[in-house]
Formats: sequence, structure tokens, C-alpha cells
Amino acid sequence: MYSVTVRDHFMIAHSLSGEVFGPAERLHGATYVVDAEFRRADLDEHGIVIDIGRAAEALRAVLSDLGYRNLDEEPSFKGRNTTTEFLARVVFDRIAAAIRRGDLGPDARGVGSLRVTLHESHVASAAFDGPIAD
Amino acid sequence: MYSVTVRDHFMIAHSLSGEVFGPAERLHGATYVVDAEFRRADLDEHGIVIDIGRAAEALRAVLSDLGYRNLDEEPSFKGRNTTTEFLARVVFDRIAAAIRRGDLGPDARGVGSLRVTLHESHVASAAFDGPIAD
Amino acid sequence: MYSVTVRDHFMIAHSLSGEVFGPAERLHGATYVVDAEFRRADLDEHGIVIDIGRAAEALRAVLSDLGYRNLDEEPSFKGRNTTTEFLARVVFDRIAAAIRRGDLGPDARGVGSLRVTLHESHVASAAFDGPIAD
Amino acid sequence: MYSVTVRDHFMIAHSLSGEVFGPAERLHGATYVVDAEFRRADLDEHGIVIDIGRAAEALRAVLSDLGYRNLDEEPSFKGRNTTTEFLARVVFDRIAAAIRRGDLGPDARGVGSLRVTLHESHVASAAFDGPIAD
Amino acid sequence: MYSVTVRDHFMIAHSLSGEVFGPAERLHGATYVVDAEFRRADLDEHGIVIDIGRAAEALRAVLSDLGYRNLDEEPSFKGRNTTTEFLARVVFDRIAAAIRRGDLGPDARGVGSLRVTLHESHVASAAFDGPIAD
Amino acid sequence: MYSVTVRDHFMIAHSLSGEVFGPAERLHGATYVVDAEFRRADLDEHGIVIDIGRAAEALRAVLSDLGYRNLDEEPSFKGRNTTTEFLARVVFDRIAAAIRRGDLGPDARGVGSLRVTLHESHVASAAFDGPIAD
Repeated sequence: MYSVTVRDHFMIAHSLSGEVFGPAERLHGATYVVDAEFRRADLDEHGIVIDIGRAAEALRAVLSDLGYRNLDEEPSFKGRNTTTEFLARVVFDRIAAAIRRGDLGPDARGVGSLRVTLHESHVASAAFDGPIAD
Repeated sequence: MYSVTVRDHFMIAHSLSGEVFGPAERLHGATYVVDAEFRRADLDEHGIVIDIGRAAEALRAVLSDLGYRNLDEEPSFKGRNTTTEFLARVVFDRIAAAIRRGDLGPDARGVGSLRVTLHESHVASAAFDGPIAD
Repeated sequence: MYSVTVRDHFMIAHSLSGEVFGPAERLHGATYVVDAEFRRADLDEHGIVIDIGRAAEALRAVLSDLGYRNLDEEPSFKGRNTTTEFLARVVFDRIAAAIRRGDLGPDARGVGSLRVTLHESHVASAAFDGPIAD
Repeated sequence: MYSVTVRDHFMIAHSLSGEVFGPAERLHGATYVVDAEFRRADLDEHGIVIDIGRAAEALRAVLSDLGYRNLDEEPSFKGRNTTTEFLARVVFDRIAAAIRRGDLGPDARGVGSLRVTLHESHVASAAFDGPIAD
Repeated sequence: MYSVTVRDHFMIAHSLSGEVFGPAERLHGATYVVDAEFRRADLDEHGIVIDIGRAAEALRAVLSDLGYRNLDEEPSFKGRNTTTEFLARVVFDRIAAAIRRGDLGPDARGVGSLRVTLHESHVASAAFDGPIAD
Repeated sequence: MYSVTVRDHFMIAHSLSGEVFGPAERLHGATYVVDAEFRRADLDEHGIVIDIGRAAEALRAVLSDLGYRNLDEEPSFKGRNTTTEFLARVVFDRIAAAIRRGDLGPDARGVGSLRVTLHESHVASAAFDGPIAD
């Protein structure tokens, strides 16, 4: 199994609802340094997993839509806790959709699975890992 | 699959028995920077894999029991080489036991598997990865 | 010249005023991973620059006062842009005050200068570096 | 599952053929920081996955054969794009062959699988992961 | 003293002349991960050392001119060894010139000194540090 | 000012005397990841600060003398606390002596100052920085 990983970041404000979150119930924020790992069984005719330039652009586009915002005010997240693991899934779903739409090029449809990791500090991270369902 | 990872460290003295270890047969020591990755299929009602505060405390408790010691004198390790991979398993077993006991909260019983990685330097690490058996 | 550095982090929401900040004019947030480097000419009688446990606690205390907040609502920052470089200075001033008050122990008064670095992502950081004025 | 990972690096020149590579079609180069992760189900009699000294030497030997070269002139890569993912496979195959030849010691034959990751910058890496076939 | 640091990278081929370089006399290459640290005594009216967006663009522009090339064929480096320390100086000079030209905005002329660090692997780096002379 | 930095590591056992050290009064140990930064005003005729191969060997030699030992039993450290800052000075003094003896080559005598940093974990480090006195 081959994989290629690209890294970028985004910065948001949010609050989390529930006693379990302690002081994080207050409005605060985070930088998420994001690794997106694209996996496939074989390389394409160019000897690559994915066009790394397009992969970086796709990641950039997804993070730009999320970044520099207060996630508490995003209608699509209403009633949900925007935890690191939840956001890892959001980024995963949006990149997977971009692959299925062909935004990363026709060859990128050979990508079988994806792992998205969000590093929220030097001591904590969360990830979502799964297949690119058709 | 979702995961959450927390990081902490501990510092010990030990020696390793066997020609294969070369100079590490002498009494020496190590800092282990430890990553504990908790995995589960779905998020709980709060949108989390695990209460990250409790996860960090559980890791801290396990590492405090091991740290600032000469492992050659620990009765429970008698006759065993406390290699990095062996210690990864020890930390794994103790965190898994804490989850099963409910120390990380009732929801944490949904954690299906765990990976414990010990970084012993900038060029070497070891890990143990397995299911949280009931 | 000797130095000792300890690392911790805090997470905040804020917005920045001025066209120069582009999308960061919107309410967003950041994780700051903070390095505090304490410097002195000679070691004390214990062979240390500073009691590293107390240094870590002092840093923790300063960051706890700042963290899990919306800095736009902090009266002490009213009318100021809480940029990374500005916050590096805030952390510097508060640790320096703790040293002068003796919170880090009487020996810590031998610390001559301090550098506080705030890493806001994998590609950007800011610092303030200066003497511990009496 | 246990694993041990060792890190080293190599530096090469090369060019990549195909419009998809943009400016990387020109002769340029890269540093690859390489992680080799050796995995096995159980520890051997010494409590190890692998003799870490021999593992580091085996990695060093493989990287020395590749490093400080213009890969465009290597006969064995003729007609192939020496992308990061392709090179991850090359390093994988050569370490796997060394294990099968017994270069890492007779016990190392218990290693079941291997992951080789090449970090080409602070924002990009590629890997190959697979079983050590007999 | 305040500072702001931005990070980017470039990838080149080159060879080094002189017995001291050993195998690096052969054509090979490197990834350089570059940190540019801008320093000034006081913050400007916006509370910043420098417009970080413009700083990142200026660094990007300088590295784009150097990257994806064989430095042995660059007329401006003829007869010089493009060592990591030499290239740190080249990047320094070009960013300093950009500041003096006003490319980073009029306020950036308040930047008093600059440090450029090139990381060539996980175990080696080089830097040039100096004032922004007028 | 130019600089070149090389990284290596060593692993030791020791204990520290004094209430200030808390649990570190017990025999324990540490991995120290060491950065040695060599500085000089101008490059030599080869375009380098120092022969990086020889610098890495000199660092390796100094760390080999310290590593895989119980520092409590080293006669030269009798009555001293082998704190991280103390050890940074020891490594500094030994590399400085090697430079003065000419072990890093005659050109290395142009190195004016040196900084030695010991990273003892992901959250703590210590350094000694000073001139290479003749």
C-alpha cells in the first residue's frame, strides 16, 4: 500500500457544550495543523499516488472554508460539538467528496482510503480514517 | 474510524541483558515521550472518542508509576528486558486496564483499540498496538 | 550563558483590527505552543538555572489565566490587537513579574533574561526577548 | 502488534517526467528523512522486535547506495519517475530483501511487515507499507 | 526585542567542490526547510513586527527563484560552493533587499535584523544572522 | 554571523541531590537529544563554517564518552549534580577543547562561539552558549 501525505493548517473559534469539556465550554479557539494521507494499492502511470499539487490545493480549499471563523455560528454545525475528532471527520468528508467529484484529477479516483489528522497542540491530536466510498 | 492521541513522558534508568544490546548492557537510562492513541468506530453523545482530560490523567498516572525509577529493581519486571517495545506493552496493558475498570468514564468503554508509542530519541521509537480486550 | 526552556500551550479566540489582517479580522482563534527560556550567567548551588518544576508551574499559571477565553472581551487588552507578538510580550511580562515577586523561589532572581516564543502553527511563531528588569 | 522504528536520511538529485510535475520536471533534488517501521506479532527471547543496531545499519546501507547521486543516471531507475512514493517502495524492497537474506540476524525473520516513510519537507511525505513476503 | 518567524521550503540539485565534502562532490540535492525570523525593537501601530502575509510571500518569492533548479548551472553562483550556510546568506540578502525596497510594506523598514535558518535534514541546519543594513 | 548545527543523542542514568528535585532524587535516567551550533563571522575558502562531517564525529565522540553510563559513578562528576544545564556545559567544554586541539581541522579554529542544547523531553531543554576561548 502506497500513501502520500500533505500538511496545512486552519484557525477557528468555538465552544463545546457539556460538563466533560470543563473550561472549553467557554468561547475559545484553536489552530489545527492538518495531515491528509491519501492511500492506494498501486501507483498510476506517472509513478504517483496523487497529483500532490492538486492534493495540497484541495486541502487548502477545504481548510479555507473552515478557517478564520467562529464555528459556533456555522449553520451546518448547529447542535453539534465541533470537537477535534468531529472536525477531522468534516475535513475527511469534504476531501473525499472532492476526490469523488474529480477535483483532484481523474486518476485520483484510484485513491482507496484517506486519513485526516488534526494536531491541536504539541500534546493532543485527533484523526478520522476510512475508505473513499463511491 | 476515529482516534484521539495524547502525549506525555517519563524518565527511567535500566540495563539490558544480552550481547545484542552492546553498551546498553551497562546501567544507563532514557526519556520516553509517549503517545497514546485511543480508537473507536463512532463518537459518543458529546462528539468525542474519549474525555481527553481523563485520558491525559490516566496516561499521567501510568507514567508516574514507572518514572523516576531504576527499572532493574522493579519486582514486576524481574528477569525481563525492559526494552522500549516491552515498555510500550506495559503502558498499553495498564491503560487498557484503566479503561476496562471505568477510570476514563463509562463512555470510554466504547474505545475499541489503542496504540502506545514510546519515542526514545529523535531517531528511534517503539509501539504496541492492539484491541482493548474485555 | 546557561538557559533552561519549558513548553506548554493555551487556546484562545480573538479577532484582529486592521485591513492588514485580512480574514483574521473575523472572530477566529489559535493554539499557542509556548516556549519560555530562562537565562543566567552561572548555575546556583544546586547546579540549576531555575527550579524547573516551579518554572513549569509559573508558565502554566500565566497561560491558564489567558486560555479558554475570547481575548476580545478581556478588559486589559481593550483597544489592543492581541497578535502573536503582542501575546508573547504579555506572557513575558507576567513571568518576569512572577520571578521578581519570588514565585519561582529566591534563587530564580538570578535569572537575567527571558525569551518567550509562541508557535501559532507549523509555519509561524513570534517571540519577545528581554532582560528581567528589577 | 509490536513495532520498532528507526530514522535516517539521504540526499539526491533527480527530475520528474510529465506535465503533472510542473517545475519538478527540471533537474532539482531532495532530502528524504526516512522512517523504517518493523512490525511483528511477538517479541523474541531478548524482548525485542529486531536488533535496533542492525536495523539502523541496514537502513544506512540502503540509503548510502541511493544517496549523493543523480537518480536520473541510475540504470535501475531508467524510464521510471523517481517520485517520493516510488522511492519509498525501493527502500522497502531493499530492506525486505536484507531481512530475508538474514542481514538483520536470524531472529529478524520474525518481522512480518514493514512501513517505509520518506519525509521530503515539513509539509509532504510518502510511504510504502506491506508484508515481508518470503 | 520582538520577532516573527515564517517557514517555507525549496528543493535543489547541486554538487560541492573540495575533498572536504566527500560524496557530496557528486551531483546530488537537498530539501531546505527555511525559517526567516524578522526582529524589531517595538511593534508598529497594528501591534505587529511585520505583515506576516507579506513576509510569507516575500520568502516564497525568494525561494521560488532558487527552487527546482540545478544550482551548479546558476550563473550568479559560478565558482562558489552552494553550501547550506552560503545559501542561508543568499536567502538573507534577498529578503533584506526586499525589505529595503519596501516590498514588505513601509512599516517593515522598522525591522532591524533578520535570521535565516536552512534545515537540510533532521540532524543538520545552517543559518545567517545579521542586521538589515540600509 | 554564520552558523552550522548538528544533532545527535546520548542516554544516561543519574540521580540529583536536593529537595528541589523531588522524585528526581531517585536513580532514574534520560535521553538527551543534543544540538551543537558552531558560529563564525565569515565562511572559509570552501564556503563553510566547519567540516560538518568532522563536527558530527566530534559531537559523536563526546557523547559516546558520556552515554550508556550511570553518571553517579563518574569520578569527574563527583559531588556535582549532573543536571541538564550542567551537562550542556560539559558537552560545550569538550567540543570547545576538541576545536582548540584542531580535531575538527585547522580551519575550525575560526569558529568563534558555540551553543550546546540538550533536549530532555518534548517539553524541556537546557543550553550553554559561549565563546571558544583560546
